[in-house]
Amino acid sequence: MAGPGFFGGLFELKGFKQPVLVSSVDGVGTKLKIAGALAKHDTIGIDLVNHCVNDILTCGAEPLFFLDYITMGKLVPEQVLAIAKGLAQACREVGCALIGGETAEVPGLYTGEDYDLVGFIIGVVEKEKLIMGKTIAVGDTIIGLPSSGLHTNGYSLVRKIFGETKSALDTYYPELGQTIGKALLEPHRCYYHQLKPLLPVIKGMAHITGGGLIDNVPRVLPQGLAAKFSSQAWAIPPLFQLIQQRGNVDRREMFRVFNMGIGMVVICSPESVDQLTKALPEAEVIGEVTKQAGEKRVVIK
Amino acid sequence: MAGPGFFGGLFELKGFKQPVLVSSVDGVGTKLKIAGALAKHDTIGIDLVNHCVNDILTCGAEPLFFLDYITMGKLVPEQVLAIAKGLAQACREVGCALIGGETAEVPGLYTGEDYDLVGFIIGVVEKEKLIMGKTIAVGDTIIGLPSSGLHTNGYSLVRKIFGETKSALDTYYPELGQTIGKALLEPHRCYYHQLKPLLPVIKGMAHITGGGLIDNVPRVLPQGLAAKFSSQAWAIPPLFQLIQQRGNVDRREMFRVFNMGIGMVVICSPESVDQLTKALPEAEVIGEVTKQAGEKRVVIK
Repeated sequence: MAGPGFFGGLFELKGFKQPVLVSSVDGVGTKLKIAGALAKHDTIGIDLVNHCVNDILTCGAEPLFFLDYITMGKLVPEQVLAIAKGLAQACREVGCALIGGETAEVPGLYTGEDYDLVGFIIGVVEKEKLIMGKTIAVGDTIIGLPSSGLHTNGYSLVRKIFGETKSALDTYYPELGQTIGKALLEPHRCYYHQLKPLLPVIKGMAHITGGGLIDNVPRVLPQGLAAKFSSQAWAIPPLFQLIQQRGNVDRREMFRVFNMGIGMVVICSPESVDQLTKALPEAEVIGEVTKQAGEKRVVIK
Repeated sequence: MAGPGFFGGLFELKGFKQPVLVSSVDGVGTKLKIAGALAKHDTIGIDLVNHCVNDILTCGAEPLFFLDYITMGKLVPEQVLAIAKGLAQACREVGCALIGGETAEVPGLYTGEDYDLVGFIIGVVEKEKLIMGKTIAVGDTIIGLPSSGLHTNGYSLVRKIFGETKSALDTYYPELGQTIGKALLEPHRCYYHQLKPLLPVIKGMAHITGGGLIDNVPRVLPQGLAAKFSSQAWAIPPLFQLIQQRGNVDRREMFRVFNMGIGMVVICSPESVDQLTKALPEAEVIGEVTKQAGEKRVVIK
């Protein structure tokens, strides 16, 4: 059912005993600028929806509905259609209702064909199934799921390093096997379908967004605990190596700005590791939970 | 409870038999530009929250929680604080949880201290109390509640007419009894507390936003019905008269761009008019529901 007099929607919540609504709001940062330079707008909506879905998945929530907000200096209908196509596709893939949204023309705030794109998601989880990381303990295993690229973070730095003109972005890099622009636009991956059946054995999750492993993982750890990663445990994809070399970026800074190949972190007890790695063939054991020693809550060896 | 690893939140939904979630996403348009020119950022959050609350109120929903998203070219902490102050104040006034939000720095998309501000609201209503306008019939009465100014619409046109520099906005107009800038920044009014106890006798509501009475009222009318307004029934505030004169704006255009002094429209059966107008001393009967004759669904005499 569509709402009558506003740009939103109605959603009947059925079949939950003690529903906890889980919400998130997100943007895609300056990945928009790359999409704009390459005039390719049909995947940026996928980025936004998947970012939001992964966010609320960290609590164990299933997505219910999504709303988007697009602000443009001047409405470009083909652009809006392309964006909406990506949003609809990603919502469909996780069974999330694209319930509403608004496209606002705000002249004077944006230049040229620039636009901003914000997404808002509501999911739900039974209270008793809420995942909050509370049972995480010393000795628990940290499993990493591969990212599909930068996802939606680190674009301001990357734009400085590689430039953001069409010709700069169309440069082919043999180590990537593709142009840098194409690599940078690769959509943010969604972990919902893979992780959903495994939620009962997962103690905590961290979606690796802005701040990387360093800032995102501590949020799910109980006080006094830290995460120790072994960066040898997974292959850091060539894209991140290229960024580090070209930009002469410090290693710890790389781990703070970028996901470095790990898009989602899952924490479980050692007994559940086999079950998880069997069900997630691409996943790697990348670290463990330790007692915190000193200030750092994340150590990367 | 705060969500662990993302910029969102959790909300336990309690005490509803058949909850229907009602959501809306909104911005405040280029009212932001006026706030920027006058360096006054502590009321724009009130605008945003009240806009959202009024939107979902049209379905009979009570606000549950709100998330905001602020995008800036460069973070200006005092600006963010001032905006947040307004958001928090307006949320508190309607008992809505300000559950989360994100402030994103998106260099290159915004110039100077420009920012964009988007709000998302989730409310709830029992399914049997959902107001959808379905019972509206010929002969029903249309009641108007006064707006507090432009609310959040028509600012692009107004900026063209009056300019948007500080000195232009600081011009005093005797007919307003204040400067044009102050009149334009007057916060969007909230109708929640006034209308909540009256919802059982209300058949339909329209929040008068972009599109004015002309575009917003038809959305709540069943097919084949129209709204006939008598513009003599209420005093069009001096601000709108000033805009019309200075901008030489066509009358019907005025009614399509601006709320013209009516911020919320309430439709009820003739039997309920006394109850409503007694409870709402500022309200006026401004029209009635008729059979649609011709193309127009809104006639303004």
